[in-house]
Amino acid sequence: MAKKTLNVGIVGYGFMGRTHANAFRKVTNFFDLPATPVLKAACGRDEAKLKAYCDRWGWESAETDWRKLIDRKDIDVIDICTPNDSHAEIAIAAARAGKMVMCEKPLAMNGPQGEEMVRVIEETKVPNMVWYNYRRVPAVTFAKQLIDEGRLGRIFHYRAKFLQDWTISADLPQGGAGLWRLDAGAAGSGVTGDLLAHCIDTALWLNGTIGSVSAMTETFIKQRTHTATGTVQEVKIDDACAFLARFDNGSLATFESTRYARGHKALYTLEINGENASIAWDLHDLHRLQFFDYKDQGSLRGWRSIHITDGDHPYMSKWWVPGLQIGYEHTFVHQVADFFEGAANGKSVAPTFRDALETQYVCDAVLDSAKNGRWQDVKHAI
Amino acid sequence: MAKKTLNVGIVGYGFMGRTHANAFRKVTNFFDLPATPVLKAACGRDEAKLKAYCDRWGWESAETDWRKLIDRKDIDVIDICTPNDSHAEIAIAAARAGKMVMCEKPLAMNGPQGEEMVRVIEETKVPNMVWYNYRRVPAVTFAKQLIDEGRLGRIFHYRAKFLQDWTISADLPQGGAGLWRLDAGAAGSGVTGDLLAHCIDTALWLNGTIGSVSAMTETFIKQRTHTATGTVQEVKIDDACAFLARFDNGSLATFESTRYARGHKALYTLEINGENASIAWDLHDLHRLQFFDYKDQGSLRGWRSIHITDGDHPYMSKWWVPGLQIGYEHTFVHQVADFFEGAANGKSVAPTFRDALETQYVCDAVLDSAKNGRWQDVKHAI
Amino acid sequence: MAKKTLNVGIVGYGFMGRTHANAFRKVTNFFDLPATPVLKAACGRDEAKLKAYCDRWGWESAETDWRKLIDRKDIDVIDICTPNDSHAEIAIAAARAGKMVMCEKPLAMNGPQGEEMVRVIEETKVPNMVWYNYRRVPAVTFAKQLIDEGRLGRIFHYRAKFLQDWTISADLPQGGAGLWRLDAGAAGSGVTGDLLAHCIDTALWLNGTIGSVSAMTETFIKQRTHTATGTVQEVKIDDACAFLARFDNGSLATFESTRYARGHKALYTLEINGENASIAWDLHDLHRLQFFDYKDQGSLRGWRSIHITDGDHPYMSKWWVPGLQIGYEHTFVHQVADFFEGAANGKSVAPTFRDALETQYVCDAVLDSAKNGRWQDVKHAI
Amino acid sequence: MAKKTLNVGIVGYGFMGRTHANAFRKVTNFFDLPATPVLKAACGRDEAKLKAYCDRWGWESAETDWRKLIDRKDIDVIDICTPNDSHAEIAIAAARAGKMVMCEKPLAMNGPQGEEMVRVIEETKVPNMVWYNYRRVPAVTFAKQLIDEGRLGRIFHYRAKFLQDWTISADLPQGGAGLWRLDAGAAGSGVTGDLLAHCIDTALWLNGTIGSVSAMTETFIKQRTHTATGTVQEVKIDDACAFLARFDNGSLATFESTRYARGHKALYTLEINGENASIAWDLHDLHRLQFFDYKDQGSLRGWRSIHITDGDHPYMSKWWVPGLQIGYEHTFVHQVADFFEGAANGKSVAPTFRDALETQYVCDAVLDSAKNGRWQDVKHAI
Repeated sequence: MAKKTLNVGIVGYGFMGRTHANAFRKVTNFFDLPATPVLKAACGRDEAKLKAYCDRWGWESAETDWRKLIDRKDIDVIDICTPNDSHAEIAIAAARAGKMVMCEKPLAMNGPQGEEMVRVIEETKVPNMVWYNYRRVPAVTFAKQLIDEGRLGRIFHYRAKFLQDWTISADLPQGGAGLWRLDAGAAGSGVTGDLLAHCIDTALWLNGTIGSVSAMTETFIKQRTHTATGTVQEVKIDDACAFLARFDNGSLATFESTRYARGHKALYTLEINGENASIAWDLHDLHRLQFFDYKDQGSLRGWRSIHITDGDHPYMSKWWVPGLQIGYEHTFVHQVADFFEGAANGKSVAPTFRDALETQYVCDAVLDSAKNGRWQDVKHAI
Repeated sequence: MAKKTLNVGIVGYGFMGRTHANAFRKVTNFFDLPATPVLKAACGRDEAKLKAYCDRWGWESAETDWRKLIDRKDIDVIDICTPNDSHAEIAIAAARAGKMVMCEKPLAMNGPQGEEMVRVIEETKVPNMVWYNYRRVPAVTFAKQLIDEGRLGRIFHYRAKFLQDWTISADLPQGGAGLWRLDAGAAGSGVTGDLLAHCIDTALWLNGTIGSVSAMTETFIKQRTHTATGTVQEVKIDDACAFLARFDNGSLATFESTRYARGHKALYTLEINGENASIAWDLHDLHRLQFFDYKDQGSLRGWRSIHITDGDHPYMSKWWVPGLQIGYEHTFVHQVADFFEGAANGKSVAPTFRDALETQYVCDAVLDSAKNGRWQDVKHAI
Repeated sequence: MAKKTLNVGIVGYGFMGRTHANAFRKVTNFFDLPATPVLKAACGRDEAKLKAYCDRWGWESAETDWRKLIDRKDIDVIDICTPNDSHAEIAIAAARAGKMVMCEKPLAMNGPQGEEMVRVIEETKVPNMVWYNYRRVPAVTFAKQLIDEGRLGRIFHYRAKFLQDWTISADLPQGGAGLWRLDAGAAGSGVTGDLLAHCIDTALWLNGTIGSVSAMTETFIKQRTHTATGTVQEVKIDDACAFLARFDNGSLATFESTRYARGHKALYTLEINGENASIAWDLHDLHRLQFFDYKDQGSLRGWRSIHITDGDHPYMSKWWVPGLQIGYEHTFVHQVADFFEGAANGKSVAPTFRDALETQYVCDAVLDSAKNGRWQDVKHAI
Repeated sequence: MAKKTLNVGIVGYGFMGRTHANAFRKVTNFFDLPATPVLKAACGRDEAKLKAYCDRWGWESAETDWRKLIDRKDIDVIDICTPNDSHAEIAIAAARAGKMVMCEKPLAMNGPQGEEMVRVIEETKVPNMVWYNYRRVPAVTFAKQLIDEGRLGRIFHYRAKFLQDWTISADLPQGGAGLWRLDAGAAGSGVTGDLLAHCIDTALWLNGTIGSVSAMTETFIKQRTHTATGTVQEVKIDDACAFLARFDNGSLATFESTRYARGHKALYTLEINGENASIAWDLHDLHRLQFFDYKDQGSLRGWRSIHITDGDHPYMSKWWVPGLQIGYEHTFVHQVADFFEGAANGKSVAPTFRDALETQYVCDAVLDSAKNGRWQDVKHAI
C-alpha cells in the first residue's frame, strides 16, 4: 500500500507550536501510519518569529494571514495553536473550507461559542480533534484500559488537582508574550480553562459525565500591569478554582487548580477509587501509575508503583526498552499518530470537538457556580 | 518539689480506652511532669469486660455507673471515652462536681449541645481538653511552629483529606461493638464528626478560623442491618463528605473524608501553601514532614522529606535517638503530658472545650450546607 | 491457668536499659503471656543514675554489683545491657547460676569469646536470647514468612546497608557517656559489631548462612580525644565497613555500614531478589514493606508498598487498627513477648546465643578480610 | 555566521542506531549549534533492515561495508553502534581516514585494545567521544556542577548499582538479534562492560579515579542455547558483578550490577556522601535529583527531591517549561549537541576515548579481581 501524506498548516508558533511541530516531525520515526503528516506551512503575524520557527522545524512555507492558509489548496489539515479567543473563527473557517481540524484546548471561550463550532464541524464532517494531550500519557491511557476492563467496580470517588506556582509574584504583568494566559480577554478564564479543562477532559473520559458542580474561584493578585496598555488594570482571570462535583455514575469528586501552590510546578494529579481497585497518577512522574487491587491477597495488599515502560503498556512498544522513560512531548506524538490513523480513513479520534464541548459545559457551570454561589447543573453534549 | 499526683477516672474501655490507658501508664517513663496521673478507676457497663480492662491496664478500681465515679472524692480527672451521644451529660456532670475533664472528640452531637458544655465548663473553671490527638504528632506540632515563625508568608491554600476504606462491604452491620460509628443515633454523624472533625481541628490550629463552606455528603450503602434490632434499617450517617471552604485569612480550602476510598486505611493528609513555603504531612508516615522553601537557592529547590526524629523536633528529645520513629500511640502520651503540665497549675491546654466547639460549628455548617445545597457561614466560638 | 511471673534483673541503664525497661513494662498491656516479667532489680555502678533509672521505670530494687544481682535467689532472668566487653563474663556467671539470660548484641568481643559463652549457656540449658531486635519489626517478620512460604523462589541477591552520619565531626571524643561505641576497648569494633551485626543477623535469618566474604574498613577520623585520659589518641574502631559475600544458597550479597553517610540517621535497608519475587525494607519507614511479585499480571507488575498495620500482619493484631503505625520501641516488646512465651516452657527463642555466634563469626571474617585483603571463609556455628 | 554542517555515517542500526538517529534528527530543533549533523549514510550488513532503517530515519544513503563508508569523501563523522567486538577495528580505520569518531560504549573488548584505539585517535587528532550518555541526564550533569562548586566537601562514600531482571529465564538463548549482549564473543563481558561500565564512567567523572578494587562475578544460568550454532553452550558472560573500590580521594565505594534483580528494569542508582552534603539519583525517575544539605537549619534538614525541569538546570532551557519532564532519549540529544559544539572547533568533548579507556581499565581490574580473588590495582589513563 502506498502511504498517503497529509499536508499540515499550523496557525501559531508559541509553546504549543513547538510541541506540535516536534510531534509532526517525529511521529513517523516511531509509528507506522496509513497517512503521514507533512509540515507544509506555518502561519503567524510576526514575520521574523515566523521565519525562525519555520527554519527551526522545517515548515516548507509561511503565511502571515490564517485566511490565506485556509484558502490554500495544498493544505489538508489546519492545526490551531492560537490563544483561545481565535479558536472559533479559525476552526469554523477551516471546516467550511473542507480542512481537517486539530484545535488546541480549550475548544472555545464558552459553551455557546463551542456549540457553534461543533455544529459547523459536524455539518462539514471533517475529521477533528482537540489537543487534550494528557489522555495519551501511557499511564493515563492504561488507567482507561483498566477501568474499561471493569477492574475497579462501582466508582465511589474521583479527585483531580492541577497545581502550579508560577504567578505568585505581584510583579508579573498580564498579557504579552507567554502571558496571554493572564489576560481574560485572550484566555476567557484563568486556571479553569487552562488547567482544570485538562482535569475535566480526563475525568469525563475515565469516569463519565458530571451532573452538577459547586465551585469557588479567587484572584489573589487583584491588579497587574497590562502589557498592551502599560497601565495597572484589574486582573479578571481566576488564579485559583476548586469545585465539588457529582458524576452521573454516582461518584463524588473534588477538583482544584491554582497557580499559587508554592512548590508545585505542574502537578496534575488524579485518583479514582472503586469498589475493587483504585488508581492514582501524577504528571511530575508521568511514567508511573499507582494501582491498588483489593483482589490481591489481604496481607499483601499495597499500592503498586508501576513503571509504565513495558512493551505491553499503551504506545510503549514504539519507544525504547523497559525501564527507560519517555516524557511530556511524547503525548503529542501519540495524539498525532492517532489522529492520522483516523484521518486516513476520514474519521475523527477522541477527544473530538463534541467531546471538548462537554468539557466546556463543565467549565461554564463551574464559573457560573463560582459567581452565583449555588450548585449548578451541567449541560450535556455527549 | 514533691510531685503531685492526680487521680484519673475513665469512662469507656473501647479503642480509645486503650489508647488513653496506655498514655496514662507510660507518660511518666518519658516525661518529667509537675503532676502525674494515677489510674484510679475505670467505668463501664459490662462488668466482665470492665474487669478485664482494669486487670490489663492496672486501673485500681471499677465502677459500672459513671455517676458514681463522678461522686467519688478520690477522683480528680474524668476522662470520657464513650460514644458521642453521652459526652455532654457526663462532661457537664463532671465539671459541676469540680472534676477536671478530658473528653474524646468530637465534643458534642452538635453546636448547641457543645455550647452548653462550654458554658458549664467555663463557669466551673475546671481544666479541660478535647482529645484531638493529631495536633501532637511531632511533625504536625513542628508545622505549627514553622507557621508561627512566619516562614510561610501569606497563605493561599489549605487541603486536608481523611480517607479510609473499611466500610465498603454492604454486609457490615450498623451499631454493635466497634461499629457505633455507623449508627447515627450514637455518632451524630458519619465521617464528618469522626474524621473531618480531626482535619478541621488541625486546620483551625494551623490556619485560623473558617468563614464559610459549601459541602456535599453521600451515603453509598443505603441500608444495613442494625445490630440492636436485627432488622435492615436506613443508614443515616454520611459515608463521605467533601467541602469547599474560605478561611478568614483569605485562603481557599478543600476538605474531604470518606470510608470508601479503596486502598487507604487511615490516610489523613494535609497541605498548606504559603507565599514563601509549603508544608505537607500524611498520617500513614506520620514521622515525616514535607517542606518546600522558596527561599532556597532556585536550582536547588525541592520538597524536603524531614524525618522528624531529632532531639530538636517537638517532643522527640523524650523518646529515642535520631532515625528511630515513634507511632500513633505517642500522640496520646504527648497530650497527657501537656494536660497534666497545665492541670498542675489549674490551667487548660488546647484544644479546650471552646476550641472544640469551633470545630463543632464547622461540622454543623458542613452538614447544613450538604443538606440545603448552599454556602453556609460558620458560627464562631473563638 | 494461673499466670506465672518471672523476675528480671537488668544490668545497665543506658539507652538499651530504657528500651528494655519500656518493653518489660508494657508487654502485658498488649500480649497475653503464660509468664510475665516483673521489674525486680536493676544494676549499675553509678548510684544516683541507678536510682533515677529505678524510679522512672519502677524497678523494685537496685544493686551496684552485678555479681550480687546474680547471687539473688529472687531473680529468674538476667538481662545484659552493658558495653560489649562485659557481656561474656556476666552471661557466663548468670548461666552458671541457673538464670535465664537475655543479652544485648553483639554477643561477644569476638568468636572465641562467643564460643565459650555458647558452651556454657548450652551446658546449663538456660533459656537464652540475644537482642537483635530488628527481626521483630513486623515488616521484617512478615518478610521471613513470605520467604518461608517459598514465594521468592531461588535467591539471586541480598543487599543490606546501615547508614548513619553522627560521627562526622572531628570534635567528637571517643569514650564517655553514650560514646563507648567509639572506643575499641569497650566496643571491640566500630560499625561492624554495632550496625553490620544487625544486618548480618537479619540476613542469616532470611537467607541462610554465608560462605565467604571480602571486606574493607576505614577510619576516616584518625585521632580523637579519649574521654578517659583526656589525651588525643588513635581511633581504633572502623568508621565504615563494606563487604561482598557469597551465601551458601548461591546468592551474592553486598553489605555496607558507616557513620559517615551524610543525610542518613539510622537507615538500615535490606533487599532480597528471588526468581519469583523481591522484597525491600527500610528502618526509616519501618512500618512498610516493599514487595514485587513476578506472578502478577505482566502489565500490572510493580513494587507494592504494603503498610504493615493490619491485623493479619505479624504482631499487629496486638496493637491498634489498620493504618496506625507503631515504631522502634515495639520491636523490643515483641522480643520480650516471644522470650517469655518460650521461657514459660523452659525454651529459648531465636536468636539464641548460638545464632548470635554465627553472626559473630561473620563479623570476625569481615574484620580479618579487611585486615589481610583476602576473601575469608566463614566459620559456622549453626 | 553561516552554519556549518557535518555529514554523519553511522555503522549499526540496532537499538543504539535508533537512539542516535533520533538524536541527530532532533538536535537542531532544540539547540543552536555552530555545526549541525546531516544524516548522510547508514551502514549495516542486512540490506532489507538497512533500507527500512534509512527510510524511517531519513538517512540519505546506505552502505553494506563499513570500509566503503569510511572511504567516502562526503562523510565527516563516523558513528559506531556495532557490538563491542568491532569497535576497535572500525574506530581505528575511521580515525586513520581522518574522520571524527563517535563510538558506543564500552570503548573496547579490554584495556590493551583500548590503548591501541587511544594511541591512534590521539595521533590523528580527530575529535572523538564515547557514548556514555548518562553523564548528560540533566540531574547527573547538575550533580557534577554541585560537586565542582565544592558543596559536598570531603567525600566519604560512593555507591552505584545498575539492576535489571530481563535474563532470569533459562529459556533465553545467547546471541541473536538483541541478544549479542549474552554472547561473550561479541560482548567481551556481561554486565561489567554493559552496565557497570556506565556506573564507572559516571563515578570517575563525579568522584575521580579509582585506586583498587575487589570483585566477584557470577553466572547464574550456566548454559544457554547459542543462536549461531543451535546447540546448548556454556554461558561465558557474567550475569552479575559486584565490587568494592577505594577511590584516590580516600572515599570508599560499592558497585553492583546484575540482570537477576527481580523487579528492576533498568535501575541505575548512584549516591555520593560528602562531609557537607549528599546526592542521590536513580534512572527510573531520571528527572529528579535527591539532595541533602547539612548546611540547612538543623531541624529542617531533609532530603530534597528536586524536579530537574527548570530553565536553570543543565540543558533544560532548551526543552519545555518547569514541571514537564524529559526522558531517556534526550540524553543522546545532549551528547550530540555537545559533540557538534566541540567538533565545529576541532575539539573532542568528554568522555573521550581516553576517558573511556580509564573506565576500561577499571572493568579489566574488576574482571581480574573476580577471577583471582584478590584486590587489584587499577591502571590509569587519565
